[in-house]
Amino acid sequence: MNIVIAGLGIIGGSLAKAIKKYTDNYVYGINRSPEPLKKAMECGAIDEIGNCESLKTADILVLGIYPEAAVEFVRKNGEYINKNCIVIDTSGIKSEICPKMNELAKKYGFTFVGFHPMAGKEKNGFDVSEADLFNNASAILIPGDAPHDAVEKIAMFCKKLRFGMVVYTTPEEHDRMIAFTSQLPHVIACAYVFSPNCLKHNGFSAGSYRDVSRVANINANLWSELFIENKQTLVNEIDTLIENLTKIRSGIEKGDRDELAALLHKGKLIKEALGE
Amino acid sequence: MNIVIAGLGIIGGSLAKAIKKYTDNYVYGINRSPEPLKKAMECGAIDEIGNCESLKTADILVLGIYPEAAVEFVRKNGEYINKNCIVIDTSGIKSEICPKMNELAKKYGFTFVGFHPMAGKEKNGFDVSEADLFNNASAILIPGDAPHDAVEKIAMFCKKLRFGMVVYTTPEEHDRMIAFTSQLPHVIACAYVFSPNCLKHNGFSAGSYRDVSRVANINANLWSELFIENKQTLVNEIDTLIENLTKIRSGIEKGDRDELAALLHKGKLIKEALGE
Repeated sequence: MNIVIAGLGIIGGSLAKAIKKYTDNYVYGINRSPEPLKKAMECGAIDEIGNCESLKTADILVLGIYPEAAVEFVRKNGEYINKNCIVIDTSGIKSEICPKMNELAKKYGFTFVGFHPMAGKEKNGFDVSEADLFNNASAILIPGDAPHDAVEKIAMFCKKLRFGMVVYTTPEEHDRMIAFTSQLPHVIACAYVFSPNCLKHNGFSAGSYRDVSRVANINANLWSELFIENKQTLVNEIDTLIENLTKIRSGIEKGDRDELAALLHKGKLIKEALGE
Repeated sequence: MNIVIAGLGIIGGSLAKAIKKYTDNYVYGINRSPEPLKKAMECGAIDEIGNCESLKTADILVLGIYPEAAVEFVRKNGEYINKNCIVIDTSGIKSEICPKMNELAKKYGFTFVGFHPMAGKEKNGFDVSEADLFNNASAILIPGDAPHDAVEKIAMFCKKLRFGMVVYTTPEEHDRMIAFTSQLPHVIACAYVFSPNCLKHNGFSAGSYRDVSRVANINANLWSELFIENKQTLVNEIDTLIENLTKIRSGIEKGDRDELAALLHKGKLIKEALGE
């Protein structure tokens, strides 16, 4: 297959490297700035620098760019995209993106499958990309209007790239779950390190500080887009969190140890029910 | 030296194993239930089961039990403790514990140094203890009324057990910092998993879910005591967190991407300033 990857950041770059490591497909790279293209050519993550012409022969087009930029890319280049091509995005939000992509797919004749690879790092860019970033990670697919065989082709493709579970869902379900599993931890991490005590913590911390604060090292530009495009769902999760923090706060203030222990113990029961 | 360890849970058990692995000291173990003592004898974590008699020859007494239980232990056994003995606790809170211990030290003639080994796991008990739990962890010491050479003896002892940094502080400073670095992450983890979406998250999560939820697998009995004994300081941290969550929430709701990005970017700047 000919695969075009637009955007060679950590996600696009890692997908390129995984494709070259685990499959025999031919990879074209497209990127706004030339530096990542040069590096990707040098290390063999891509076979060739792509352009409009490569879109005409693409079997799969991977959009490794920010959500709205991905829509813009397709809007601008839709006429060049091969009608047999399956276009997949890698956006962290879907309700705002999938309908627009489905419309463009109809207009230009290609197939669109929503895709969210559940992996990342607290750093960004091609330099931190790696072939095994997705080992055992979930691949979330949003089939939408795509024909069954196109969706299965992407699922097989994910398996070859060493993803773990492939999950099929709707844009709404995706955004509701991601608000909880991914966006809220980023909100928490930032709010947490804003405490005036954070800058003085040296020598007083262990694993629990490290873990909750890790993703505060945030790509603010990307996440502000993701948060705002999933506004209501995320605000609901934040409200639920504040409610539950307030419950625990009241338990502490009241000072009834048995009552507080019973409340906290629910955390352990949930983790156990999840087998974690 | 003769070292008596009262309480062979994860902390006491790991200290016993570290002492036997890295020093030539003789270790007595004391524990309410017989099972950990049997296991500790079998694996060589202790040399002998201790009692009142061993306290009479102890050079160091380590209290590996819950804060108030540690005070109770010393109150009950104070008359047996060698007057040359240095007693160290391992409590996660100090303002409520150190003054009581200092009083008992005066009454019975031994020396007390507050001690908080900054390591742990989300599981408890002797079975999960290990000699290298403290490798590179901070050892926080609260010298209080103890003579300089006793404090230095404990600092040297920590270095031999492979602790990293040794930090000297007051009970108040300790509790203020620990409320932020350790207690608040446990509050957050519990409040986080209380979301109704948590039980449905399978397939939708990656590292950030795993990290923020990890310590929700909480020892509710221990942490309810720690939280309540550090009530006001912890409630202040929770209030600060809720304030900062509310700021980010407003930014999302307002939907100004640049403004939100500027707010979130402060998280990155703080992590960078900390070299993390």
